[in-house]
Amino acid sequence: MSLTLDAARRILAATRAEGRAQQMKPLSVVVLDAGGHVIAFEREDGASAGRFDIARAKAYGAVMLGMGGRAQMARAEAQGYFMAALNGVFDGKVLPVPGGVLVRDAVGAIIGAVGVTGDTSDNDAAAALAGIAAAGLTGEA
Amino acid sequence: MSLTLDAARRILAATRAEGRAQQMKPLSVVVLDAGGHVIAFEREDGASAGRFDIARAKAYGAVMLGMGGRAQMARAEAQGYFMAALNGVFDGKVLPVPGGVLVRDAVGAIIGAVGVTGDTSDNDAAAALAGIAAAGLTGEA
Amino acid sequence: MSLTLDAARRILAATRAEGRAQQMKPLSVVVLDAGGHVIAFEREDGASAGRFDIARAKAYGAVMLGMGGRAQMARAEAQGYFMAALNGVFDGKVLPVPGGVLVRDAVGAIIGAVGVTGDTSDNDAAAALAGIAAAGLTGEA
Amino acid sequence: MSLTLDAARRILAATRAEGRAQQMKPLSVVVLDAGGHVIAFEREDGASAGRFDIARAKAYGAVMLGMGGRAQMARAEAQGYFMAALNGVFDGKVLPVPGGVLVRDAVGAIIGAVGVTGDTSDNDAAAALAGIAAAGLTGEA
Repeated sequence: MSLTLDAARRILAATRAEGRAQQMKPLSVVVLDAGGHVIAFEREDGASAGRFDIARAKAYGAVMLGMGGRAQMARAEAQGYFMAALNGVFDGKVLPVPGGVLVRDAVGAIIGAVGVTGDTSDNDAAAALAGIAAAGLTGEA
Repeated sequence: MSLTLDAARRILAATRAEGRAQQMKPLSVVVLDAGGHVIAFEREDGASAGRFDIARAKAYGAVMLGMGGRAQMARAEAQGYFMAALNGVFDGKVLPVPGGVLVRDAVGAIIGAVGVTGDTSDNDAAAALAGIAAAGLTGEA
Repeated sequence: MSLTLDAARRILAATRAEGRAQQMKPLSVVVLDAGGHVIAFEREDGASAGRFDIARAKAYGAVMLGMGGRAQMARAEAQGYFMAALNGVFDGKVLPVPGGVLVRDAVGAIIGAVGVTGDTSDNDAAAALAGIAAAGLTGEA
Repeated sequence: MSLTLDAARRILAATRAEGRAQQMKPLSVVVLDAGGHVIAFEREDGASAGRFDIARAKAYGAVMLGMGGRAQMARAEAQGYFMAALNGVFDGKVLPVPGGVLVRDAVGAIIGAVGVTGDTSDNDAAAALAGIAAAGLTGEA
């Protein structure tokens, strides 16, 4: 199974709706496929210029490592030089904080990841999880 | 005036609708702001994995140089080493062919660019122009 | 459908066997998945040091663009600056000559690519096609 | 003496066999030559997309520095900025944790390195050592 553009758009819409419902700051949301390539992205008005790169790095690291942002953050806090070196390994495209959320299909296979940035990292992750659930898929923050 | 996410989404939808109306291959469409930063992107099912990078490079070069893709192509054909060097200057993010289209506001100021890839370069540019026009803005291919 | 390691190993073995049967020079063979990530690689004794990067660039460009190396070469000969710029877009990881061969499944979806280097580009591509066919899959050179 | 492809394949097979015998998670295994160039690589089904880059960085750093991953980790813990800067020196291709294992010949010369990733760093290193020993060579974790 792979993520279609329609599924990615449903995730984007539901993630943004959750952000508005919870009165979060303007969100930027990316959906990547299982190879880490962008399917869809939206940056809400008022978000800062660099938000695409931040959102993608959260999601890209999740796909490359097979770990959500929360697990990456735990590793970074336990062994900072390891996650710093991984940032180099992946050309700066890894950002180990919540908001990078794996998307799994019904049998548990990784089919992509969602990256959200704009509010606190915990809120970013909560919005992503809500968006993924609204699309009938399983998120791993 | 700056491009809002709503305007970017109208451009995306109208560009994709034009692609379907003209029976083009699956399109990938990016909208950048006046600083070259991504506002929105969608990759249609069946498009190859690298389409985000191609679409963005078409649009990014347009914003950075203030020239649409068609003008960049003319320059590349007249003076290939110049566009090759610019590709290096901008970290590889410049692709001088049609499909990178400047977006201008009512007074002619550049407020962003659209990058389209998937069909022939000429069709990519035509779809972008249709999308920009549908949003009430002026495109320069 | 996705390429398993077992399928990739069958492709590697059959590609190398074809090289030996046709008395080609030492071959280097990579198999990438649909996202351009390496599944398996082997470099035969006597091949030069840089062969991994060459093999991967042949296959990576095929996946990113959705075009085999022969189609990329035709585009490069018609419009050299375009393929030169694409090399920059993809961080130098695109090499537009035969030997980069798309792998398609039974319904025509791209599930990966094989990159072969070591002999002439035409022989490299022929070996890849033989290897892909031996694994029961369809190659597009 | 240099590592042949046959020796690299024996190392790969024995490393993976050790992983299965110890019920480790899916492993990715690379064998580099004395110049840090890839001879062979395999990524087991179920491993995440970025495992080639991680495995190579473990092994590449070992060859470039002449130190196994465990010694690099000790240095990183004592002097984090040093290993961080080395990551930059070597274009991000150094990852200072166990699982990067030097391969030495009978007289102690470095003839390559093995990089393993997928399970805990300690298990990765144990699998590499088992694989190198099975090929009649000496590993330094």
